[in-house]
Amino acid sequence: MKFCSTCGSADIALRVPEGDHRERFVCGACGAIHYKNPLIVCGVIPVYGDKVMLCRRGIEPRYGKWTLPAGFMENNETVEEGAQRELLEESLATVTLGPLLTVLSVPYISQVHMMYVGTMAEPTFGVTPESTEIALFDEAEIPWKEIAFRTVSRSLEHFFACRSAGKFTLLNAKIG
Amino acid sequence: MKFCSTCGSADIALRVPEGDHRERFVCGACGAIHYKNPLIVCGVIPVYGDKVMLCRRGIEPRYGKWTLPAGFMENNETVEEGAQRELLEESLATVTLGPLLTVLSVPYISQVHMMYVGTMAEPTFGVTPESTEIALFDEAEIPWKEIAFRTVSRSLEHFFACRSAGKFTLLNAKIG
Repeated sequence: MKFCSTCGSADIALRVPEGDHRERFVCGACGAIHYKNPLIVCGVIPVYGDKVMLCRRGIEPRYGKWTLPAGFMENNETVEEGAQRELLEESLATVTLGPLLTVLSVPYISQVHMMYVGTMAEPTFGVTPESTEIALFDEAEIPWKEIAFRTVSRSLEHFFACRSAGKFTLLNAKIG
Repeated sequence: MKFCSTCGSADIALRVPEGDHRERFVCGACGAIHYKNPLIVCGVIPVYGDKVMLCRRGIEPRYGKWTLPAGFMENNETVEEGAQRELLEESLATVTLGPLLTVLSVPYISQVHMMYVGTMAEPTFGVTPESTEIALFDEAEIPWKEIAFRTVSRSLEHFFACRSAGKFTLLNAKIG
């Protein structure tokens, strides 16, 4: 932040406002305090029978790696709606949403990733500007060394562990 | 947003950037896209024996109403760390953190509230600039009509239901 988004002044400095404990971007001209807070990434583990659907990333970062359909939650939606929207945008697939499976804090990038289990009624999906290839994998076929993000591999590991145990429980953990 | 925080231009308009589906604040001068996303509020249900600790709000909104210690998650922390920080800042209390009990989307204000169960080893707490009064309540004493926020009353209801059932499960729901 180089300019105040409220008044346009360049008199922006990182300092601790009165009554606060943390440095914020504060405008010396109009006094506006500009907060920066963590972002939520929401997504789905789409399940069809014994298989899980993954998307090969068609955008950076991690272009060409495999991921779960997920993305930044938007204003005025629920986490569930965001997860289903991202699924549709990235893969043209739809699911019946099941339990929230993982809540993974990633403090070094100030994100919280939240993944749901979702059941596909049909193996219907298609490539999009965000995904160059989409495929169903059983557990033995998961390309673990080509997974785009640690939150995705951790969510997949937890999914398969829960499925083996016959019970889905929430994993709330820290990554990195 | 009236001015671009990157270049200071007043040529800011809400429009859909190329490749996007939603209106964003876009700078006509430098092209910067300014995203707005939901905020996470994290907090704790502090439990001492049969009782739950509540704080009477010393700040707006809902000055004078009772709440659970909770507040905006900050960058570079986990949800758990944020919940414990807010507990300490608002009530000077500490807990051993238990399960994540509620994930409540509040889309009309673009927030997600996440509350943990926490166990207090001692009934140690104190008023702060944010809380004018702090007290322990058993279930029958909870001032339901004086609770500050619906996410708080919903979290308390779910806590007592789980405690009666002898098992804590995650409530993932929408408020409003």
